[in-house]
Amino acid sequence: MVHFDASSQTRVDMANARSQATIDIPVIRDLLYDGRENWDAHCRVQRIVSEDPVFDKSQRDFLGRGDLYRRGLAMTNRILELEDIHKWSSQETSEAMNMLDETLPIRLHLIAFEPVLLSQGSASMLQRYRHLAANKAIHGCYLQTELGHGTNVSRLETTATYIPETDEFDIHSPTLTSRKWWIGALGKTATHGVVQAKLILPGGKDVGPHLFLVQLRSLEDHRVLPGLTIGDIGPKALGGNASNDNGFASFNHVKIPRDNMLSRFAQVTRDGQYVKPPHAKLSYGGMLYIRSSMVISGGWTMAKAATISIRYTTVRRQGGGDVDGLERQVISYPSTFYRLLPILSRAYVFILLGQRITTAFNEMSSRLASGDASLLPEIHATTAGLKILVSTTGTEDLETARRSMGGHGYSAFSGLGRIYADYVPSATYEGDNFVLDGQVIRTALKSYSNIYSTKTSSMSSLSPFSSYLRLCHSTKPPQITNSSTWDDLASVILLLELRAAFVVRDFARNQGDDDASASQRVSRAVVDAFVATQIGHIVKDLHILNLEKRVISDLLRLYLLTTIESNLVDFLSFNILPRGESGDPARSLRLSIRDLCLELLPNAIGLTDAFGFSDWELNSALGVYDGNVYEALWKRAQEEPLNKDEVTLAYEESIKPMLQRGHKLALRGRSKLCRLLCIATSTINLII
Amino acid sequence: MVHFDASSQTRVDMANARSQATIDIPVIRDLLYDGRENWDAHCRVQRIVSEDPVFDKSQRDFLGRGDLYRRGLAMTNRILELEDIHKWSSQETSEAMNMLDETLPIRLHLIAFEPVLLSQGSASMLQRYRHLAANKAIHGCYLQTELGHGTNVSRLETTATYIPETDEFDIHSPTLTSRKWWIGALGKTATHGVVQAKLILPGGKDVGPHLFLVQLRSLEDHRVLPGLTIGDIGPKALGGNASNDNGFASFNHVKIPRDNMLSRFAQVTRDGQYVKPPHAKLSYGGMLYIRSSMVISGGWTMAKAATISIRYTTVRRQGGGDVDGLERQVISYPSTFYRLLPILSRAYVFILLGQRITTAFNEMSSRLASGDASLLPEIHATTAGLKILVSTTGTEDLETARRSMGGHGYSAFSGLGRIYADYVPSATYEGDNFVLDGQVIRTALKSYSNIYSTKTSSMSSLSPFSSYLRLCHSTKPPQITNSSTWDDLASVILLLELRAAFVVRDFARNQGDDDASASQRVSRAVVDAFVATQIGHIVKDLHILNLEKRVISDLLRLYLLTTIESNLVDFLSFNILPRGESGDPARSLRLSIRDLCLELLPNAIGLTDAFGFSDWELNSALGVYDGNVYEALWKRAQEEPLNKDEVTLAYEESIKPMLQRGHKLALRGRSKLCRLLCIATSTINLII
Repeated sequence: MVHFDASSQTRVDMANARSQATIDIPVIRDLLYDGRENWDAHCRVQRIVSEDPVFDKSQRDFLGRGDLYRRGLAMTNRILELEDIHKWSSQETSEAMNMLDETLPIRLHLIAFEPVLLSQGSASMLQRYRHLAANKAIHGCYLQTELGHGTNVSRLETTATYIPETDEFDIHSPTLTSRKWWIGALGKTATHGVVQAKLILPGGKDVGPHLFLVQLRSLEDHRVLPGLTIGDIGPKALGGNASNDNGFASFNHVKIPRDNMLSRFAQVTRDGQYVKPPHAKLSYGGMLYIRSSMVISGGWTMAKAATISIRYTTVRRQGGGDVDGLERQVISYPSTFYRLLPILSRAYVFILLGQRITTAFNEMSSRLASGDASLLPEIHATTAGLKILVSTTGTEDLETARRSMGGHGYSAFSGLGRIYADYVPSATYEGDNFVLDGQVIRTALKSYSNIYSTKTSSMSSLSPFSSYLRLCHSTKPPQITNSSTWDDLASVILLLELRAAFVVRDFARNQGDDDASASQRVSRAVVDAFVATQIGHIVKDLHILNLEKRVISDLLRLYLLTTIESNLVDFLSFNILPRGESGDPARSLRLSIRDLCLELLPNAIGLTDAFGFSDWELNSALGVYDGNVYEALWKRAQEEPLNKDEVTLAYEESIKPMLQRGHKLALRGRSKLCRLLCIATSTINLII
Repeated sequence: MVHFDASSQTRVDMANARSQATIDIPVIRDLLYDGRENWDAHCRVQRIVSEDPVFDKSQRDFLGRGDLYRRGLAMTNRILELEDIHKWSSQETSEAMNMLDETLPIRLHLIAFEPVLLSQGSASMLQRYRHLAANKAIHGCYLQTELGHGTNVSRLETTATYIPETDEFDIHSPTLTSRKWWIGALGKTATHGVVQAKLILPGGKDVGPHLFLVQLRSLEDHRVLPGLTIGDIGPKALGGNASNDNGFASFNHVKIPRDNMLSRFAQVTRDGQYVKPPHAKLSYGGMLYIRSSMVISGGWTMAKAATISIRYTTVRRQGGGDVDGLERQVISYPSTFYRLLPILSRAYVFILLGQRITTAFNEMSSRLASGDASLLPEIHATTAGLKILVSTTGTEDLETARRSMGGHGYSAFSGLGRIYADYVPSATYEGDNFVLDGQVIRTALKSYSNIYSTKTSSMSSLSPFSSYLRLCHSTKPPQITNSSTWDDLASVILLLELRAAFVVRDFARNQGDDDASASQRVSRAVVDAFVATQIGHIVKDLHILNLEKRVISDLLRLYLLTTIESNLVDFLSFNILPRGESGDPARSLRLSIRDLCLELLPNAIGLTDAFGFSDWELNSALGVYDGNVYEALWKRAQEEPLNKDEVTLAYEESIKPMLQRGHKLALRGRSKLCRLLCIATSTINLII
């Protein structure tokens, strides 16, 4: 009997899939990296980092939390050493940090502590601290959330009471629930922190939350300073964010000089007078930056999910025999490609959209810095809406991709469990998605009522985030009558805008008698319309060769069609869908999705290769570049610490006593049975 | 300033919520436990187990996998000791095992090894092994899945070649992909295993997969027997199933006596002749049992999610001020109760439905045992469909519940992460849900075509799983014209049956040109219809007081209404929904759901209390009975091992070098800046 070797077939399948690609991968890759030079820099940094033993990932899945925390800091320190050795630019260093795929404590210093300090610290504070922060001579964190409060900053309980006698603030945690909680890098790492606390003026007037710089640990020996109780809040669900020391802090009348208030906008004078900020929302920039950057980072996270799952389901064979006697490649099943190709499309959309958002955000920032806050409400709603969209679909996609890999997807070595565990809090942090829905809706309703309160001329002044509202006077859908609608990008975009217009209009009319999920539906409709129009711009601006342009356009169209399908209820409720000949108005859409998937399928491996992930970056036995998944699984399992001892410690402790007990009972049972049998036999003998 | 103490308010809120309940909790609890005596037994066992230090859970979240494995076996051994001490019945012992909430290796012995042995072993094998297995004098596992194959048993590669010369089978793993993989309890625990292997007769004829009993480890010293390579396959995604040693095994021509074939149905004679089993599917019972038992266990898992999340969101306050100046209880937000009460309803449905399924299953089993396999196809499809439904919605619900708790939900101490990690493979094991869809559909199509091929009289012979098909000749929905439809259980059930009929009919008509997600939609429609009719029976059979009966009926109706809402696309596509006055046909349904939630809300805590979980069982800081969540979080964090050292080991290793490097660079930067400032100043002086 000839043994067919399924394991070597995987390499053949992968090579075949790769050779099927019609696209020029470097062209697409440069698009995703926003230029060849970025890709080159990525490769340069990646080579150095991946070859350095400090960044070895082979033992990662076996480490406990304490070791993962220490490993994270060792990697951070090593990155800085490498920065010195290779004279990396700050962009290269941050590229190196990002590719580690760890939620390192330093991240909080970089994205929260330092930006807040720079944007809100006074000139004198910057003079004292900017160099220390920039060079990591201090390690900062940002203490906002408390045990009892998160999003609702106005209810924070920590107090900063100004004491004119000593020209100091007294930072204090009056209650259990006022203790700072969840603060990244606080638990064991940070030396300094920016603390959100209610500013209390002499006489007791509470003027609401303000920011204060507090040193937390000694720069001599890293011990916690007097008056502070600080620690790590414990492990996170699913083992996520293990290398980050999210911490708690309780302040017992900690005194800091008046200068330590971040007073670029609001101030307290020497005699305790409060000086208001010129604009209440000047401090929003940081949060907007974090939310808007979640679009592109979410896109790259989905890219990993798409790469791993599409590679594995390309080489995994299962079920009915193919023409050549082999089982079918799992990706060839409609239920598989229908789940995975849309994830691929979302990765592309969010990476390309993220590039545009970053540009738009920088524009807004410079206007905000010069005191112009007019763009703020729309940008606020846009980033909130995109944050909801990306984090909600991103977490779903990671799990969908992992489950598409069946049993082996549940191995830690699939890599997607770890990514999910780290990514999933994005749905609840930086504003819980269900809370943010409200912000999207408020802006939508305001724009909607503006249209009615002013002349129609206001239509022309609609921002990109509200332009769908121009359609809300429509009584019926535009001329969309047959299934070829789905091939036409402009029609598809229009449908999504129309849906947003109708959903918002309906919501506005029913206000005060909303159903319980209305907010989510409205918010999603508005964001979907925005993304749809942006996709229109992206496709228009694609300056690449025709073949590649067609494939990318198809992929982005798949995004739009599956977006419509996921929200069919809205389209059917408002009669926006073209009715076909068949009874089911959704059928032509669904068949178009299937056909589009089948068209894209030969390029699926190519489109994932274009993300440019190395095996080290993916760290997945199922997503290996060469398709040799079974050997990869086998090799990794040999490293499992439980396999070091042939006989487990549990044998003497527990298994042996269990077996011995069982043996005694079995003997007793058998002899009892034997007696019963003897009686039975003799009875039978008697009868006979 | 008076400090309001949010922490003590939580206890007040919980007490208030509890006092609002109108239902008599013990009445409902007895219903869920299927009788007072079961509840009493549960309490008796729970008290003993929860007070025993071996079952302490306080350190669980901090343990690595090796320790969790050893802890699991220590607990197993202790349960058996307690069984002896307290003379527990087998039901009490299994109650004790279940309440540990750990995926223990012994589970595989109990639900797979022993049942397979008993149902398929020959009389002589049973004589030798049944007492050993029953008393755990041997510890078994069930080796089916291989690296390269799972569901598709016919493609398994492990061989069992009969050797007439020695009257033995030669068990062999011919390839890398033929190695057994994922086998629970195999890695380090099991002494014996039932191995699925292709039976090869003398002359080389392959008669497909059969079962063989193989001893794996010595009963003297637990060492792996010669010819075998065995180990643990490594950690699972998300840290799930940590205490189970899923393992691999490779067989190198391992010889076992002919008697070790499980030959109750198929046999090999001494001279190598194959004796066929009387019915090809007699061996399906075990799998059906596991799948059908997933209904009730899934229900209890959702019950935990509902309890923890409803308790926490009852005491967590956030956002806009309430009348009394307090923030609102999170559960009072529509976006929260709309997410959580349906989970509560599903927990109730699956527990109550699970009780009925167990009864039905036992009936089927006794008919199967007597050779009557006529019920098999329908039961097969029913259990497959329910398994898909319960595991898909169950995993979703666990995450929804966890996320409803916002930031703190992501703490390991919330308890729901761990439950999710353990539960999530239920979507891919015991038949991947997407593969099982196909089985549901095949049965549905067969029943559908039966209706057409025979006289209408066949309608009356439709099984409970197909009775919805009586409606597939309908051309239009029954008289459902206004919103009060949603209050009428019978109408709601009818709608769900109608949808199944229309969806199946449509699918049958379009066969050969299916869209890519048709299978999932059809399968879901069929299962939903089955559950709906079962809910009708459950409500009819509720023999409890009126008030409680009304609340439970409302809760089950909420299940049905939210089921319709989740699948509105089907209802809208086939025009099954009653059109209201407003443009949106879904509006009256959604408002009914909102109103039903608001009606149920005062009983939400009562309905979760009725599950009877102790704090030890839930093991959640956020789900504590008394509502004292912030103190519970605080206490648990103090146990975090990272908090044992004031200064982390990482300080000397990594943090100190980073800070020192930064300090040097900052000094250099500052002196550079200083020089620049000096030049600038002197320039300015020159200009002035």
